Amino acid sequence: METNMDKELSSIFVIFGGTGDLTKRKLIPAIFSLMYEEKLPENFTIVAIGRREKTNEEYREEMRSSVEKFSRFSLNDYLWLKFSKRIFYKNFDFTSDNQGYADLDLFLEKMEIRYLTGGKRLYYLAVAPEFFEGIIRNLKNNGMVSRAIGWQRIMIEKPFGSSLETARILNHNISKLVPEEDLFRIDHYLGKEMIQNILAIRFGNSLFEPLWNANHIDNIQITSNELLGVESRGAYYENAGILKDMLQNHILQMLTMIAMEPPIDFEPESIRDEKVKVLRSLRPFTAETFKENIVRGQYGAGEIEDAKVIAYREENRVSKASNTDTFIALKTYIDNFRWGGVPIYIRAGKRMNNKSTEIVIQFKKLPGINYYKEFDNISHNLLVLKIQPEEGFFFQINAKQPGSEFKMEKVQLDYCQSCRALNDSPEAYERLILEAIRNNSSLFTRWDELQYSWQFVESIEKQYENNIPTCPNYSAGTSGPKEAIDLIENDGRQWWNTASD
Amino acid sequence: METNMDKELSSIFVIFGGTGDLTKRKLIPAIFSLMYEEKLPENFTIVAIGRREKTNEEYREEMRSSVEKFSRFSLNDYLWLKFSKRIFYKNFDFTSDNQGYADLDLFLEKMEIRYLTGGKRLYYLAVAPEFFEGIIRNLKNNGMVSRAIGWQRIMIEKPFGSSLETARILNHNISKLVPEEDLFRIDHYLGKEMIQNILAIRFGNSLFEPLWNANHIDNIQITSNELLGVESRGAYYENAGILKDMLQNHILQMLTMIAMEPPIDFEPESIRDEKVKVLRSLRPFTAETFKENIVRGQYGAGEIEDAKVIAYREENRVSKASNTDTFIALKTYIDNFRWGGVPIYIRAGKRMNNKSTEIVIQFKKLPGINYYKEFDNISHNLLVLKIQPEEGFFFQINAKQPGSEFKMEKVQLDYCQSCRALNDSPEAYERLILEAIRNNSSLFTRWDELQYSWQFVESIEKQYENNIPTCPNYSAGTSGPKEAIDLIENDGRQWWNTASD
Repeated sequence: METNMDKELSSIFVIFGGTGDLTKRKLIPAIFSLMYEEKLPENFTIVAIGRREKTNEEYREEMRSSVEKFSRFSLNDYLWLKFSKRIFYKNFDFTSDNQGYADLDLFLEKMEIRYLTGGKRLYYLAVAPEFFEGIIRNLKNNGMVSRAIGWQRIMIEKPFGSSLETARILNHNISKLVPEEDLFRIDHYLGKEMIQNILAIRFGNSLFEPLWNANHIDNIQITSNELLGVESRGAYYENAGILKDMLQNHILQMLTMIAMEPPIDFEPESIRDEKVKVLRSLRPFTAETFKENIVRGQYGAGEIEDAKVIAYREENRVSKASNTDTFIALKTYIDNFRWGGVPIYIRAGKRMNNKSTEIVIQFKKLPGINYYKEFDNISHNLLVLKIQPEEGFFFQINAKQPGSEFKMEKVQLDYCQSCRALNDSPEAYERLILEAIRNNSSLFTRWDELQYSWQFVESIEKQYENNIPTCPNYSAGTSGPKEAIDLIENDGRQWWNTASD
Repeated sequence: METNMDKELSSIFVIFGGTGDLTKRKLIPAIFSLMYEEKLPENFTIVAIGRREKTNEEYREEMRSSVEKFSRFSLNDYLWLKFSKRIFYKNFDFTSDNQGYADLDLFLEKMEIRYLTGGKRLYYLAVAPEFFEGIIRNLKNNGMVSRAIGWQRIMIEKPFGSSLETARILNHNISKLVPEEDLFRIDHYLGKEMIQNILAIRFGNSLFEPLWNANHIDNIQITSNELLGVESRGAYYENAGILKDMLQNHILQMLTMIAMEPPIDFEPESIRDEKVKVLRSLRPFTAETFKENIVRGQYGAGEIEDAKVIAYREENRVSKASNTDTFIALKTYIDNFRWGGVPIYIRAGKRMNNKSTEIVIQFKKLPGINYYKEFDNISHNLLVLKIQPEEGFFFQINAKQPGSEFKMEKVQLDYCQSCRALNDSPEAYERLILEAIRNNSSLFTRWDELQYSWQFVESIEKQYENNIPTCPNYSAGTSGPKEAIDLIENDGRQWWNTASD
């Protein structure tokens, strides 16, 4: 029996880059989880495309071990059989082979007839960015998008462009091929449980909004620390650096969710309208503010979890004289009514002393702090949103220490998402795939969001050649260059890091 | 070696009513705990007074079993020996025997010489209220208060008077004998950890004050539920009722701590000045508002924890036709700038369906609740302060349910005082005795606090004879009369009870 859910969601998921790492680690396990939780109908079908020759059976076996390794649900034979019979492998060279697209279309049409998916197709571009435009052009030329039947959507992995200009060109070219509403540009941070929860917490409670402004908030901090180095991605990282790998996308996305005005409703365009306004209000850097408010860093050799690790310049496919940043710390402002004068401190780095992404809202110091001697040296009130790997949020406030004396202590009013609901919190890719199929584009970046985030990032990058630090300037396994600590301490503030507490 | 702590705190604790229940259950175990925690110096001495003939040894043995039963620390022979050798028993009839006071004074002076307590004496009146004045008069007549040496303070158990008039007379008479600053009127709720914590939380954080007013708070609820009936106190309760047993003292004290303006400092007089202002702003009842906003109740027979219990009218030393309240629910207002228009809902009862004292601050409904359809039916934001038996506080807020759907759920941002610090949280009497010795009167009620709370209570009592409910009107083991639920539900609100959730 077919339900409404089935009709709406039954579709074919076409993966360009079907043998790549992302497909193995994230996409196939995510779809498996969605099937496991019965979020997708029985006739949902996967067609993976790769250049290598492979049978369906061979490909399915490979995917089985991926799912075993990376899925949050455990596999059994029955489940696998049910899932795997809807996975198909199709090999052709998607970079040049126009005939391959025609063949693929024929193949997909056969599938549509067999599985009654009504022409609904989701093309996922899990390939290097230089292939985005070519694939879309081929899809267009072969009548595989904007068809009269069903819908055809394209999910595009980041990075979308490597600068404002290249992003503009790419967008210009693509937009002539498919309408904006069929493009789903991925920033997988938007699929994270706690990023979603920012909307819920901010706008689902009457407690927060009265405090959520420059009158009550002293500063906002976003920290994204990784333990990992560049791993096998040296060539990519040499071009991207932390600026384009983290700041331009994930960090600015988090900032917009925290800082945006209440949208008129939760429709995708309403939310994205508000996010864009934050990006447009974000104060860009000048030569002068760059010097004062930005700290660049690159890791040297060091120790991570008791193991020696090499310097960035020694990594594979990295120049021995590279000045690429693996760390950045900055201070900026959102110049609007809500946030005027509230510093935004951001820091992100590879090879840090912990793995933790979190957002800290620091409330203003108590006025009374000077009047009640009992409150000398009490701590600031914080709202901490833990994004990954732990998920949850807590207020840090002051309370009386139990006992006969009137002494104060910090306490955490805590709600830990991941401790409470182990396995309940879906992986970002599960949510993103499902929402693309549901045509909810609010978790994807609209072109103007990209445009303004590139503009901000370019105001930084423009100053790079005149402001090269001595590389390396921090040891792996530390909290980054000393200057990053000075950056905030010179303002009489401090970085909060609840992960290493 | 004598320390400064020793000098300041070394004193004699004189208990009138040394063989009574309060002494056994609370006072001696509390002093033992203070000794155990080394809050009191070695030479701190206890003199218990009773009418019965007893040796020190006999008395000490009785106290040993009390401490074993009621102390939060466990006893051993060494500790007991150390503690008990400073306990002395003195028998005389404190109600009439003037010579007995002279003898007592001689005895205390000998103790002062032996233990070097410097004339410092704390008289604790653990006796029926009718004896308060007589004892103080005898102490005065025998030169046992306001001496030239050390200090002499008097701790007085509740109830202080049985009406505004009797309290006034008692206070008038006592105040001619001893200065106000030597009188420590006990409301043991003020010694509770979480009541102390109200000050710490409200004024030690910048989060709360901006929200702590009529703009953001919808209503305040204070609930005091007991499972117990009147036990052996039928005669007392017939006169007191819930009004004088709970409302006039404990509940109004809690309300003042929640509602007061920030004091200029934490000195006792500064805090009590602000508390009095709340009591003076509390809207008294009239014949009309009584009918609308007060529900009286008296328990009938019922079941508590699977055991049958008798009706109030069947209790020992209670009239078969008694109309005494064992339950009250009311709504009133604090008519000042901060709280104008915010209803204060209070309910207290014996033989209820749970044992729980808590204060709930309910925040206003979200304005956006009508605009975001995702937030239909979400709950109110609450701040819940759990006073007893559990201690702690939490915010109840709304967050996203983990999972692929954007569904909301209630979550508690929790800090549980008693789960975290088992045994750390001192009993109310420990704190009160220690603070009286330290001369910190902020935990004791000043005369004008009593005066205004009696005034408020009398505005209710005045209406009693014209508003007698059919008694009994609720069964033991329930949540009270139905009318109490109507009282709040007619306003489109509900009682929160996190204990039975």
